[in-house]
Amino acid sequence: MSTTVKIGLIGFGRIGKIHFNNIQQRIPEGEIIIVSDPVADFSGISVAVGSVDDVISHPDVEAVILCSPTDTHADYVEKAALSGKHIFCEKPLDLSLERIIRTLELVDETGVKLMLGFNRRFDANFLKIKNLVNNGDIGEPQLVKVTSRDPGPPPLSYLKESGGMFLDMTIHDFDMARYIMGKEVKQVYASAAVFWGEEIKAAEDIDTAVITLKFEDDSMAVIDNSRKAVYGYDQRLEVFGSKGMVNVDNNKPDNHFFYNEKGVHSALPLHFFLERYTESYLSEMREFISALQNDKPVSVGGEDALKATLIALAAKKSVQENRPVTIEEIKESLGISI
Amino acid sequence: MSTTVKIGLIGFGRIGKIHFNNIQQRIPEGEIIIVSDPVADFSGISVAVGSVDDVISHPDVEAVILCSPTDTHADYVEKAALSGKHIFCEKPLDLSLERIIRTLELVDETGVKLMLGFNRRFDANFLKIKNLVNNGDIGEPQLVKVTSRDPGPPPLSYLKESGGMFLDMTIHDFDMARYIMGKEVKQVYASAAVFWGEEIKAAEDIDTAVITLKFEDDSMAVIDNSRKAVYGYDQRLEVFGSKGMVNVDNNKPDNHFFYNEKGVHSALPLHFFLERYTESYLSEMREFISALQNDKPVSVGGEDALKATLIALAAKKSVQENRPVTIEEIKESLGISI
Amino acid sequence: MSTTVKIGLIGFGRIGKIHFNNIQQRIPEGEIIIVSDPVADFSGISVAVGSVDDVISHPDVEAVILCSPTDTHADYVEKAALSGKHIFCEKPLDLSLERIIRTLELVDETGVKLMLGFNRRFDANFLKIKNLVNNGDIGEPQLVKVTSRDPGPPPLSYLKESGGMFLDMTIHDFDMARYIMGKEVKQVYASAAVFWGEEIKAAEDIDTAVITLKFEDDSMAVIDNSRKAVYGYDQRLEVFGSKGMVNVDNNKPDNHFFYNEKGVHSALPLHFFLERYTESYLSEMREFISALQNDKPVSVGGEDALKATLIALAAKKSVQENRPVTIEEIKESLGISI
Amino acid sequence: MSTTVKIGLIGFGRIGKIHFNNIQQRIPEGEIIIVSDPVADFSGISVAVGSVDDVISHPDVEAVILCSPTDTHADYVEKAALSGKHIFCEKPLDLSLERIIRTLELVDETGVKLMLGFNRRFDANFLKIKNLVNNGDIGEPQLVKVTSRDPGPPPLSYLKESGGMFLDMTIHDFDMARYIMGKEVKQVYASAAVFWGEEIKAAEDIDTAVITLKFEDDSMAVIDNSRKAVYGYDQRLEVFGSKGMVNVDNNKPDNHFFYNEKGVHSALPLHFFLERYTESYLSEMREFISALQNDKPVSVGGEDALKATLIALAAKKSVQENRPVTIEEIKESLGISI
Repeated sequence: MSTTVKIGLIGFGRIGKIHFNNIQQRIPEGEIIIVSDPVADFSGISVAVGSVDDVISHPDVEAVILCSPTDTHADYVEKAALSGKHIFCEKPLDLSLERIIRTLELVDETGVKLMLGFNRRFDANFLKIKNLVNNGDIGEPQLVKVTSRDPGPPPLSYLKESGGMFLDMTIHDFDMARYIMGKEVKQVYASAAVFWGEEIKAAEDIDTAVITLKFEDDSMAVIDNSRKAVYGYDQRLEVFGSKGMVNVDNNKPDNHFFYNEKGVHSALPLHFFLERYTESYLSEMREFISALQNDKPVSVGGEDALKATLIALAAKKSVQENRPVTIEEIKESLGISI
Repeated sequence: MSTTVKIGLIGFGRIGKIHFNNIQQRIPEGEIIIVSDPVADFSGISVAVGSVDDVISHPDVEAVILCSPTDTHADYVEKAALSGKHIFCEKPLDLSLERIIRTLELVDETGVKLMLGFNRRFDANFLKIKNLVNNGDIGEPQLVKVTSRDPGPPPLSYLKESGGMFLDMTIHDFDMARYIMGKEVKQVYASAAVFWGEEIKAAEDIDTAVITLKFEDDSMAVIDNSRKAVYGYDQRLEVFGSKGMVNVDNNKPDNHFFYNEKGVHSALPLHFFLERYTESYLSEMREFISALQNDKPVSVGGEDALKATLIALAAKKSVQENRPVTIEEIKESLGISI
Repeated sequence: MSTTVKIGLIGFGRIGKIHFNNIQQRIPEGEIIIVSDPVADFSGISVAVGSVDDVISHPDVEAVILCSPTDTHADYVEKAALSGKHIFCEKPLDLSLERIIRTLELVDETGVKLMLGFNRRFDANFLKIKNLVNNGDIGEPQLVKVTSRDPGPPPLSYLKESGGMFLDMTIHDFDMARYIMGKEVKQVYASAAVFWGEEIKAAEDIDTAVITLKFEDDSMAVIDNSRKAVYGYDQRLEVFGSKGMVNVDNNKPDNHFFYNEKGVHSALPLHFFLERYTESYLSEMREFISALQNDKPVSVGGEDALKATLIALAAKKSVQENRPVTIEEIKESLGISI
Repeated sequence: MSTTVKIGLIGFGRIGKIHFNNIQQRIPEGEIIIVSDPVADFSGISVAVGSVDDVISHPDVEAVILCSPTDTHADYVEKAALSGKHIFCEKPLDLSLERIIRTLELVDETGVKLMLGFNRRFDANFLKIKNLVNNGDIGEPQLVKVTSRDPGPPPLSYLKESGGMFLDMTIHDFDMARYIMGKEVKQVYASAAVFWGEEIKAAEDIDTAVITLKFEDDSMAVIDNSRKAVYGYDQRLEVFGSKGMVNVDNNKPDNHFFYNEKGVHSALPLHFFLERYTESYLSEMREFISALQNDKPVSVGGEDALKATLIALAAKKSVQENRPVTIEEIKESLGISI
């Protein structure tokens, strides 16, 4: 690995631009040297622009970052792996579990590193919780509670390609539950509803859910989701254990409290993920580039993508059949034994 | 009804004493004139002491307050109703749904008022939430979340008589969910565990649970319970709706924040229900006595006891069979149509 | 002292009624047996009513509580002391320092106990701070900050008799500063203004002030006062020391946080002293009665009244002459050596 | 002005590096092309390095940033102004008021822009307060309270050159008080002490102070300072006005609350100014560069430096003579009429 890791970026939308700016401006150990996007405007960008193949086959490129649409992820991961490039891929890896498994097997064979973009693991609040849990301050964790609400649903076009709320939105929370607890999920029960209209129903999707996870040792997680919180982006987490409890509140743009005759007023949470997770996007990318430079394992690997997807599929089935669904059952139905 | 309502108190344990002191010292509109308890120490008490029958048949007694063991509630309610006395009864009315129904029918026939001791409805925090919901400030409520954790489990002897955690502890939360949402529950899924030892297992009880309720309009409740939070009594509530969200934190003995080199330290929540719900015990009794004086309906009636019990029984069955259970199903299994 | 301390109450206004209800309803160790007030309505009160002399000379009365107008305090204290009655007197003892001293000397000669109504010392928040300071958790206290704001100024008639803001309102804060720091004040600088109108100016009073106190060891206090905070009663305190800092926020009627599109909204502080200091009025009276029963010193004595008044007079002079004024100077100007 | 403002940086210590990194990495509208520092290590820096004269006389340099020691500021400002370079200068401009005035006159004659580094004006919390004040939400502001405490005193060598706590540390708070209130100070009273040892005494400096400012309309400010808060950097502000009050708490690294048997524990404030004011250093530099590009006035000018220094000198004199000191008096003593 060279002193500065040479990177190719595929996909220059909202997330792609975050990674681009972080690397070019704030991570001197990395450098994006070529970018690909069929529709983006590259004016003002001083790096090479090319096709996906140009990026993946570029002789100086040591790693690729995939921020293209979900349905291209698996293809590009495979191409990049076969070209010997390390990969950072936005979640989800794919909507199909079989495809995820096949892709991970191939990645495994090639020996390249693959990191998944579960950026929330790098948020200062959740890291603090993780550290308290790891240090034993909470004792044995018995319950993790995740509140995750978006300020508004994405457009119908996005919804149709998204794989549904569980695979698109809750997958972050499934990953967080596993990460914080450090245990595997054995069973899922999800209760869901549509409160925000015809478009979501038309897409056969849901916008509201409460999901209960059971871990191998009977400890639990409960996640509540909404696609629309009128007050903004709501991202809170709590862990309850045998020796204590820890929770984190939302981040706010400032700490003011304004008192007048009507009450005490304070700021709403940071509006959405770009604001809330600004620093965690930076941290995850620093960790990816550092793992490459020091030839160490990445902290969020293919197995994490796989496990979160299994939980999401179980949740989907749980809603469809209104019953708890085991992870084992999902594996068996797909003939998987991992 | 006389200017001062004359009351007989049956049961002079922890809760009985609360009601006694509240009425004698702080509610001039009521007066306890006779008390019954087979084992309590009445030294220093300046009112008459007698048997249960003495209390119920006392000619001046206009209302009785029942704080005796759970398994006596239904009997005493019936006796008091037949004697034409109004009744305030601590929860639960009974552990058997059939018995509850039979008792309520009898109460109904006699025309006396019956109020149930769901004291938490009178807590200033939960009242504030209820008012915001009723005023439409939250919009249409979509999810209510209840966190309810005790500082430690009761003794085994108590557990054995309690009917299990759902009927003993969670029943408050079931009532709260119904009360806040103003809707009826149609389905229950409960996931439970035992983390605090052999005694609880021996009693075939549980100490930890996450319960998801579905209301008639698909809105939801999620309750998380633990019999033992090492940091004390944890009683929080949140309602999420189409126009906003409200939550309440625990009450603390003081508002101090102490900063030293190790961090910022503040007070634990008020230790247990006697401290947390001091004022709500007073308010509910004021409301009961006021309802009698003004011949108005009591705010927490027999139907509330019945409905909360139905949910608790569904939760119990849900854990036993690891599946969502409808309220309809419980009713049918018991041949009830209410 | 009898088992139940027999008490005579003089003055049945706002504060008098608080003490009356606390003793009759919530302090079984005390009993008010006679009350005096030239204008109050005593209907519904089941104790004897008489003149001030009736109360003080009543053979069964062991202690008197003085809640009459300020300008009667010293007279009644002296009368009661000469009659051998213990005394609880609302602040201030008198507006004139010479009179205070003369009265305290007489009290001293008679040997009766005299407690002053600095009720805030008994507030749970301030007690918590006091305990942290006493335990050494803060290290050596270097600065105490008191914020004390009223929801609105009293009527002009009251202002005229009050002795001015420092002797009427800030005197509580002067006492609190001494109490928390456990040190004596040597110098005062006060900066004041009138923002709330002609009435206050007409009364030659002020409505806003910042007062800096210097203690004997150069540690400091800073107090900020306003007669009118539109958002209600604002009572906060902070102590900064060599090992840490502690502050307390206001008490609120509930802990709700309501989130909507406009922001996060929470409750205003408890509106005024009757709401905020409900429990501290009860605690101080319990302590007074307990001191009588157990023949122990009262915790807030005549010297505390004297010292707080000295500071108030120095503050007044400081504003008039726009310069720091020493306590020594005030003493000398009055020919006092205490 | 060119599209990208070409900048020379003088002084490459702690603050110099912050500005360097902000401009090179996060402000594309500016570019540092030459740097000067007699002792700094420039390895890894890809821009030219030269003497102070090299920087100021560099033909491409359009603006200089001065982060050199305080006693060089006035000299370099004058040199740069005479060379027609715009100037961003860290506070204080100089310790001598006469010199400040002379320098400002010269700057004025040359017509270059001069911005002072009162970075705290750009902090999101204080900006929120400023906006609420400007919008009239607070009504007429009557009192501003500033708490400003450092985690520990600077080394003796620094103290000796610093001009004393008021000119070095409190000057930020004097500026903030003027800025928030939008009014001029007419009188200062400062009470000070030394609690942290011999070194500070030896430097004839202080480490603790409470300063009361009086504005032209009798509204007030109160500032409390300590050179050493064991719990870290404490930067809070409150404004009280006729229609409301607003305060801001410290910023913390995360929002966790950890509950265990001993209490509830949360994070300490961000440790020191580099952490707390990271974003405000960036914002002020963005504003400086934007003012140059758009030929608009800078928001913090020479007059602000002058006014804050006047207040600091008055505070110094107030401590020395233990009396309130007017700004007018300081001006007169120096023969200044501004």
